[in-house]
Amino acid sequence: MKKLLLSASLVLLSTLVFAQNKDSLMIKKISDDVMQNGTAYKNLRVLCKQVGPRLSGSPQAQKAVEQTAKIMKEMGADTVYLQECMVPHWVRGKKEETKLIYANGTSKVLKAVALGNSIATPAAGITAPVIEVKSFAELEQLGRKVVEGKIVFFNYPMNSLFINTFRAYGDAIGYRVAGPSIAAKYGAKAIVIRSLASNPDDHPHTGVTVYADSLPKIPALALSTNDAEFLSRELKKKMVTKLFVRTSCQMLPDAKSYNVVGEIRGTDFPDEIITVGGHLDSWDLAEGAHDDGTGCVQSMEVIRIFRSLGIKPRRTIRAVMFMNEENGGHGGDKYAELAKASDKKFIFALESDAGGFTPRGLAFSGTQAQKAKIWQWQTLFEPYGVESFVEGGGEADIEALQPLGTVVAGLLPDSQRYFDVHHAETDVLEAVSPRELNLGAINMAGIIYLISEYGL
Amino acid sequence: MKKLLLSASLVLLSTLVFAQNKDSLMIKKISDDVMQNGTAYKNLRVLCKQVGPRLSGSPQAQKAVEQTAKIMKEMGADTVYLQECMVPHWVRGKKEETKLIYANGTSKVLKAVALGNSIATPAAGITAPVIEVKSFAELEQLGRKVVEGKIVFFNYPMNSLFINTFRAYGDAIGYRVAGPSIAAKYGAKAIVIRSLASNPDDHPHTGVTVYADSLPKIPALALSTNDAEFLSRELKKKMVTKLFVRTSCQMLPDAKSYNVVGEIRGTDFPDEIITVGGHLDSWDLAEGAHDDGTGCVQSMEVIRIFRSLGIKPRRTIRAVMFMNEENGGHGGDKYAELAKASDKKFIFALESDAGGFTPRGLAFSGTQAQKAKIWQWQTLFEPYGVESFVEGGGEADIEALQPLGTVVAGLLPDSQRYFDVHHAETDVLEAVSPRELNLGAINMAGIIYLISEYGL
Repeated sequence: MKKLLLSASLVLLSTLVFAQNKDSLMIKKISDDVMQNGTAYKNLRVLCKQVGPRLSGSPQAQKAVEQTAKIMKEMGADTVYLQECMVPHWVRGKKEETKLIYANGTSKVLKAVALGNSIATPAAGITAPVIEVKSFAELEQLGRKVVEGKIVFFNYPMNSLFINTFRAYGDAIGYRVAGPSIAAKYGAKAIVIRSLASNPDDHPHTGVTVYADSLPKIPALALSTNDAEFLSRELKKKMVTKLFVRTSCQMLPDAKSYNVVGEIRGTDFPDEIITVGGHLDSWDLAEGAHDDGTGCVQSMEVIRIFRSLGIKPRRTIRAVMFMNEENGGHGGDKYAELAKASDKKFIFALESDAGGFTPRGLAFSGTQAQKAKIWQWQTLFEPYGVESFVEGGGEADIEALQPLGTVVAGLLPDSQRYFDVHHAETDVLEAVSPRELNLGAINMAGIIYLISEYGL
Repeated sequence: MKKLLLSASLVLLSTLVFAQNKDSLMIKKISDDVMQNGTAYKNLRVLCKQVGPRLSGSPQAQKAVEQTAKIMKEMGADTVYLQECMVPHWVRGKKEETKLIYANGTSKVLKAVALGNSIATPAAGITAPVIEVKSFAELEQLGRKVVEGKIVFFNYPMNSLFINTFRAYGDAIGYRVAGPSIAAKYGAKAIVIRSLASNPDDHPHTGVTVYADSLPKIPALALSTNDAEFLSRELKKKMVTKLFVRTSCQMLPDAKSYNVVGEIRGTDFPDEIITVGGHLDSWDLAEGAHDDGTGCVQSMEVIRIFRSLGIKPRRTIRAVMFMNEENGGHGGDKYAELAKASDKKFIFALESDAGGFTPRGLAFSGTQAQKAKIWQWQTLFEPYGVESFVEGGGEADIEALQPLGTVVAGLLPDSQRYFDVHHAETDVLEAVSPRELNLGAINMAGIIYLISEYGL
């Protein structure tokens, strides 16, 4: 019996070793193909320079839909189609104005942008005393008596001590998302936040804010980190009397838009769907290179690689360009809704939405058994920079698939530079390294290949 | 006996766990201090913007010596001193000229720079037919009959298939270093090489060339990768008749220069020396940010950290700014020569000279026992991005210490972006991420701390 077990183990082991060799050769082929024939950077140029900023509802978002559909058709996807969804249509309007007003009547312009989804100020702007707070707790302590009629300045920095900058972002994002409503509760007339950026800079970083239905909506802006520091210093000197802010943003009626899906039909299990995606929309003030042009072009690259190498996947692969991640998430919601209604099995979904930087890890959610299966592949990825497989994963556009039993995953690129460019005008093609972008695509195609071969 | 062994093991284990906890806390302290109070980026600004390009023998190299000595004094090093060494003093002279001459008499300027240590052309330049070769083997095959009197164009690209770009650099560097002498053997009048760069760009990348004493010296230049591609295409069309190159470089008499050493004396084993360094010189056409301003400021940062945290090292720590790594290595040679002549033990040397990018690994040479001691520390570094300790290490300036029994080591940053800027005018402060730079310093200070505590 022991002998039998031993020989069975040996057979299993040799099967595993054989499979790993075959898989390792395939991932090497994928790598060589991307490094030699890759089109991710060329396609990113299309999104950044030909299309440009592409906020949901904008003509550029529509152009991005058309361009990516065209690219995936040319790559030879079996089918390319659109998934209609309604999206918020917010427009920034005229360039925002923000200035300090000094006791002596002079003023100083500050660099600031409206937060996404912010309302407009009255046409004349808002001029009011400004009060700096470091936290919601401090705001609550001051209370309505102090806050009412003022502009609240949330000066909460991204914590530089976190090595992973996403943790610092998660720690600070509440002030951007909930700041306006919480300040409105105490009678504030508007808010300005310190931009969410890892380093001092002169570029305000925008991002979505969400108004609570039950509270008054007040205008919200982000100051550049340097100007937030400046304002804080000036306030300490007691020389500033008031802040002036003017925004002319508008929330127009919801607009029709689309997810773009490119599909290669699986040969053996066509009803098992493997999703790989990024989001197509970007903020209106950036080219949306790292957020999230890179995720889109890496996902399309998976299609190109399979065609280029003549790989016929056993399961169906879908590259999905999700619409409206930035200020609504309606594309991701629509995708999950259609998935629920379909009779197909959505076994795996991977999103790249953490920048096109050098890849370091892949994160997976799923059952123990699913993860055990995935973990055994980890060493296959080490030559391509992905040194860790970790628990987690599931970016905004795919997390709604989890209740369907989908294993959701995320590419984990190095995070050090991301919040230098995130949601700011510095998020341009030139900030992306072609090799780093390609490496991400290689690792993404590698895991998609393995799951298409072996299932979950 | 078994019981005794077991309890002895347990004591050992708990000692180890206790030590690791203490060490892990210390590295966290180091990390927090660097992220909050770090001066590496500020000091890099001094080297890049106040000093600027600092080729050996130049007035800026001297200024860099003075500035870094000043900085380390201000950091509170116990002693700061210079190690005199003679260095080659090469000057580029007037801006190089390179152009294609077409059959119809028109011409087209190409972007090219002289290789470091190259000789000048005659004042009128050299105009000669150009012959493209892909390899030394191809050159040999053509032989003197074909090559004599021509300009040889070595068009050997960095191989994009290598994931680690340093491997591609190592694979291609022979054409830059030995190209002129090998071409001269067959009677070539000059050479141009394709720049060593990972991506197509318009910035020629220089770097040292070395003439064989036994062969005629001929001028050598590097074309930008884009212009190398262009030249290659034009040659295929048979429309180019000749290439014109003009350089006015000069090798002046050797100049006096210095390594700069900042030292914190060890409390328990002051005669055991731990070296941490980068090289102070850079090419004349770049700010030398990643090569190797970052290595210098990270090494100085180790001094600052020990002072800031009040760590009294048990062994002596020396931050060394090596002179002349780029075109001679005389600073490193001098350091090893003085080490040999001294009665101190040079137990460990770490150099950072692979760019100030996000750190991924540390490489160590040494005996099995030494490496076994070091390997047990690896997990302490994972939170700070260094996920692998590997065999290797020993950059140019410290490899001469190896015969003394010194364990030599190198920081391994992510390599994807390095050869975009290496030896080119794009190697500027702005290409460095402050957080990536700091992370390198944290890992360097961490390993220096452990070795100063536990020895080797």
